[in-house]
Amino acid sequence: MLETMRWQAEESFLELLDQTALPHETRYLKCYDYSGVAAAIKRLAVRGAPAIGAAAAYGLVLAAKNIMARSSREDFIAGVEIAARELAATRPTAVNLRWALDRLIKRLYAVEAVDPGALYDILLGEAHAIYREDVADNRKMGCYGQELIPDGARILTHCNAGALATAGYGTALGVVRAAREAGKAVSVYAGETRPLLQGARLTAWELLREGIPVTLITDNMAGYLMAKGKVDLVIVGADRIAANGDVANKIGTYSLAVLAEKHGLPFYVAAPVSTIDMSLTSGGEIPIEERDPAEVTHMAGRPLAPAGVNVWNPAFDITPHHMVTAIITDRGIVRATYRENLMKIFAGG
Amino acid sequence: MLETMRWQAEESFLELLDQTALPHETRYLKCYDYSGVAAAIKRLAVRGAPAIGAAAAYGLVLAAKNIMARSSREDFIAGVEIAARELAATRPTAVNLRWALDRLIKRLYAVEAVDPGALYDILLGEAHAIYREDVADNRKMGCYGQELIPDGARILTHCNAGALATAGYGTALGVVRAAREAGKAVSVYAGETRPLLQGARLTAWELLREGIPVTLITDNMAGYLMAKGKVDLVIVGADRIAANGDVANKIGTYSLAVLAEKHGLPFYVAAPVSTIDMSLTSGGEIPIEERDPAEVTHMAGRPLAPAGVNVWNPAFDITPHHMVTAIITDRGIVRATYRENLMKIFAGG
Repeated sequence: MLETMRWQAEESFLELLDQTALPHETRYLKCYDYSGVAAAIKRLAVRGAPAIGAAAAYGLVLAAKNIMARSSREDFIAGVEIAARELAATRPTAVNLRWALDRLIKRLYAVEAVDPGALYDILLGEAHAIYREDVADNRKMGCYGQELIPDGARILTHCNAGALATAGYGTALGVVRAAREAGKAVSVYAGETRPLLQGARLTAWELLREGIPVTLITDNMAGYLMAKGKVDLVIVGADRIAANGDVANKIGTYSLAVLAEKHGLPFYVAAPVSTIDMSLTSGGEIPIEERDPAEVTHMAGRPLAPAGVNVWNPAFDITPHHMVTAIITDRGIVRATYRENLMKIFAGG
Repeated sequence: MLETMRWQAEESFLELLDQTALPHETRYLKCYDYSGVAAAIKRLAVRGAPAIGAAAAYGLVLAAKNIMARSSREDFIAGVEIAARELAATRPTAVNLRWALDRLIKRLYAVEAVDPGALYDILLGEAHAIYREDVADNRKMGCYGQELIPDGARILTHCNAGALATAGYGTALGVVRAAREAGKAVSVYAGETRPLLQGARLTAWELLREGIPVTLITDNMAGYLMAKGKVDLVIVGADRIAANGDVANKIGTYSLAVLAEKHGLPFYVAAPVSTIDMSLTSGGEIPIEERDPAEVTHMAGRPLAPAGVNVWNPAFDITPHHMVTAIITDRGIVRATYRENLMKIFAGG
């Protein structure tokens, strides 16, 4: 599997796999400053809640690198905080972004070191930790989650909650991988995920590369697919989960949850605890990013629709907790009542 | 409004608006023989159940034109029947295609004329009648259907059931037009309708041209749109309706019906009686066309997905009758119990 991102230790810069070019081209963007990372997050060169968390952490390291030579501790921290605010503002919905940035800033305040060089080393260590922990957490999620996957399961997923959405292995696709590693025969239906086709471009590509059977459908085929009895369960990732278990995820997730409910199919969400935002009581409080209408009206620069048409382009939707069969986290499987049981997960962690 | 098709009386050929080129280009295909019409139907240059019915009727006229000089009555009818079988085989789901062809063939058998020239005139007259009646039927449907549309209604539609899907005015969009002509403020959400984007390319274009407020969404946004309270009702066309009221329509229609049910929204189907197939007891008997995987994996010749990925590409789905609030026909509004009430419509007609 290709790496979503890699830190070049010798020259201290970040390489990001440009996911907008997949599956046609495999190229890495070199980021020497945090503004390059911010731009890459904005235009979805790197995407997926855990992946943008890790990328933002490295972005902050780059900001620190470029100011450490000329700063006192105070100036250094102030400069890093300015960069953190800019990185946090790139995308509003996925909470992992702010979670990762907050974790680095907190770490800075927690140490007594005054030398910016030492502070830089601390930030870099913390970014590496976030990256490493993400892979490990995905493996744990896979381990817990695969228990829910029957042998022979035909699994519908949406968008890309795979290795490419994380530091590696994946959340929803991590569960699929773990089921396969446990010896189960599984096959996947990948919804193409308009407008940006992460399902077609990324999920189908990841699974094909590993020889996991995958069938591509357009998003509007999901209902008929279920009605024909071709799906056993749905599993998706998440961009933010509120304290009551409401799930923000890629637009179209809610429609799949309604369809799963109608057809009596389990609807699972796989996400690390860093995606759970206990500060929000319900999904209604999660900010939903609305993106450029051109994502809907154009494809690779070519118009698909008549010029001047009005467009609604929310990037995410909210699935109410009562439609979620279980949330698969790196600390175990959580079921209703979510408010209570998510609290336990945090207390236990 | 542009004409979907036009018969050039002087030179006796059919012009079809090439809908694959819309909205970017307005060009007419000239068809001098039935095989040109068959090819145009297959590649969706003309599409929409009523429109392909009328186009196939003219196709049969072209077949007749090219054999009348050298035929007896028997040879003429045999030749026309060969063409009819080929035209009928172009697309399996929409019943209007076979309905129109059967109507022309029946008309041939019903007359005593032996001169192929006279028989040709009869076929041409019947094709013109189908074309004219379709526009008139759409206006009747609009007249009945608009009673169901409240002033200020925000209407979600799928695919294109507009002027372009018919000889003119439209079925679902005919109802929208009639509501507007009745002085009601209406606005439309058009689902883009992957894979071939008839919603984005055709519905948005039709409505923009007439100044009817339209907002384009990707198909997977419909659920969230309803959850946000932005839609009052759903109205779609149909490709075939079974005797029990089950509806075959563009893929994605069933998902919308499930979502409408979940959100307590009316789900209307607008279709002329020529779309109702009383010979089929339920939707399970309607043949569902599966089309080329390249429709899903490619856009304008460019690949969207990794090469070699498996694809499922049904062009239609079945919405069970119990999820349909009412069927709007040119003979009035039909509600459950459909088996009984559709029978009455046919008895009354």
